Amino acid sequence: MLDFKIISTDHNARLGQITTPRGIINTPAFMPVGTNGSVKAMSPHEMKDLGAEVLLSNTYHLYLRPGHDIIRDVGGLHSFMQWSGPILTDSGGFQVFSLSPLRKIKDDGVEFRSHIDGSLHFLTPELVMEIQGALGSDIAMVFDECTPYPADREYALQSLQLTTRWAKRCLEAKNEGQALFGIVQGGMYADLRKQSADELIGLDFDGYALGGLSVGEPKELMYEMVNYSSSLLPPDKPHYLMGIGDLFDVLESVGAGIDMFDCVMPTRNARNGTLFTSLGRISIKREEFKNDAGPLDPNCSCYTCQNYSKAFLRHMYMSREILSMRLNSLHNLHFYLEFFRRMREAVSKGTFMQFRKEMTPILQNNFHEG
Amino acid sequence: MLDFKIISTDHNARLGQITTPRGIINTPAFMPVGTNGSVKAMSPHEMKDLGAEVLLSNTYHLYLRPGHDIIRDVGGLHSFMQWSGPILTDSGGFQVFSLSPLRKIKDDGVEFRSHIDGSLHFLTPELVMEIQGALGSDIAMVFDECTPYPADREYALQSLQLTTRWAKRCLEAKNEGQALFGIVQGGMYADLRKQSADELIGLDFDGYALGGLSVGEPKELMYEMVNYSSSLLPPDKPHYLMGIGDLFDVLESVGAGIDMFDCVMPTRNARNGTLFTSLGRISIKREEFKNDAGPLDPNCSCYTCQNYSKAFLRHMYMSREILSMRLNSLHNLHFYLEFFRRMREAVSKGTFMQFRKEMTPILQNNFHEG
Repeated sequence: MLDFKIISTDHNARLGQITTPRGIINTPAFMPVGTNGSVKAMSPHEMKDLGAEVLLSNTYHLYLRPGHDIIRDVGGLHSFMQWSGPILTDSGGFQVFSLSPLRKIKDDGVEFRSHIDGSLHFLTPELVMEIQGALGSDIAMVFDECTPYPADREYALQSLQLTTRWAKRCLEAKNEGQALFGIVQGGMYADLRKQSADELIGLDFDGYALGGLSVGEPKELMYEMVNYSSSLLPPDKPHYLMGIGDLFDVLESVGAGIDMFDCVMPTRNARNGTLFTSLGRISIKREEFKNDAGPLDPNCSCYTCQNYSKAFLRHMYMSREILSMRLNSLHNLHFYLEFFRRMREAVSKGTFMQFRKEMTPILQNNFHEG
Repeated sequence: MLDFKIISTDHNARLGQITTPRGIINTPAFMPVGTNGSVKAMSPHEMKDLGAEVLLSNTYHLYLRPGHDIIRDVGGLHSFMQWSGPILTDSGGFQVFSLSPLRKIKDDGVEFRSHIDGSLHFLTPELVMEIQGALGSDIAMVFDECTPYPADREYALQSLQLTTRWAKRCLEAKNEGQALFGIVQGGMYADLRKQSADELIGLDFDGYALGGLSVGEPKELMYEMVNYSSSLLPPDKPHYLMGIGDLFDVLESVGAGIDMFDCVMPTRNARNGTLFTSLGRISIKREEFKNDAGPLDPNCSCYTCQNYSKAFLRHMYMSREILSMRLNSLHNLHFYLEFFRRMREAVSKGTFMQFRKEMTPILQNNFHEG
């Protein structure tokens, strides 16, 4: 149900291809996030035109609303949201951790309250697999506990062991025709990361993700964990760094052998008027753009930059027009997907280190304040 | 700068064509409203694909934000909003009347406070023409006082006379290459409507609008005024009924010889989840649609109906996704533009009366509660 091959490598960076029945995902891949079944402000056909090859959707959100039974009844998530390419669904572990006001972790699962209406729910590994089966995603994730930061060694150990037990139960409940990825936890303890990776590799998943990162720890510590943990993963399986999308971090992580990324940064920033460009980050609300007839990014080929002036984009933003969110989201997603395309090209040509060096000042301008 | 010809008539209904340097407007025409320079939730390219031939934009809004100087500086409204077809701009008379918390009508103009920031402004006929010149619209409207309802005869008389004086001043300040329409006022007094029409016709405008209708008066009174006032207008000029878009009222008014309409109904209703269909009006939030895999309107060829289920549209609406507003707006605008296309077809075939009869039950289902 999922075939992965490495096409070429450049230092530790990998150019690969994941083949699913619904299409090929060229890696390193960026997965735009369609939390509720829609990449915010975008249509699925626009996502295809932008060159997105895989979307991520959230099990937690779709379970709470509209409910996985409804999505199964009307033909599954692909048909529901009109996206015919591959979909990866996360497991809800991170959302229970980050969104639910009250959660109780038990050995059997997690009790939590809905962030929508406060109703009480209990997610177990088996239910999470049932939900992902009903959604019919191409790649499912195991239910995990996202270890918080900071966490003492004992907590991190207990937590990774719980994640391993849940991973086993997810594997037993694996859906036919659906790939399943394990999630390495272990907090910021290298030896616990190794223990987690070893336990999961022993269970044999279709791919491996790193979880519990970018949860408040210093960047250097995160890079250390990504570099070390990535080196522990089977080289013939996809490596997925969950929830990370600052392009600095992406470059560092691709350099460490990571193949897959997801993040709401391009779309969330777009809605807030923050735009990533080849000349650095732009806050479109700035007064200086009010009569600027030039495009947002003179080096960009996206619909927004080919058609509209900064003056218009500023006006749409200031007027709170929906078109503002559309044009901004489209541009930022194009920037991200183009960045990944260029990263793949660099790995293919063996120029990834040079690419990383060239991109650093642009990324500093784009990301250093955020 | 504007050529109008009648192609055929059916009773009092007229099939016509307005030719502008930027394209042909087939009448009866619906003008979608792009208040701030964007038809809400839509891109201009989508509006073109839907078959819109002319857009309306608001002088009042664009004067306050971003300011007409800015739009002139960056190349005019067509370039700013990326709509290459004809644009009609209203004069701000109605917005000053309906949006400004405090307004003082003087002989020279109207003092009012911005609904955005409370700042004080003074609009005169000359300034309104300067603004519309800066925007570069294809059809401008004279600055008028929208007579409120109810208004006593003396007020309505004073008001229409003020509108005539302002219309003269607008004509003197007419922009080269821009058509200018007069606006008939007179409240609900037939003889005052006649006086207003006569005075304006004496000034010779490129087209004539009926203003001050649908401002709270009973429907029957409105129909009476539309029928009578329309009969007073020069048959060889376009007749525009301002701000009216309930399709019942549209049918009645086309039957009375009206050629042009504008209204926010399709887009505003769309954002509130109310959708017009060939089977009647649908509130997409209704529980019964939660697992309805069928399209919104089985007889509709729009992108929304060709791709998405009612279950998905309901989910998008309940999740407050931007895609909900996009898909709903697209559908309602398609419904409106298709309705106008079919009306023109009926007039062309001499079957307008039959069309009106056939559409009545559908429109009753679509509009009777609203």
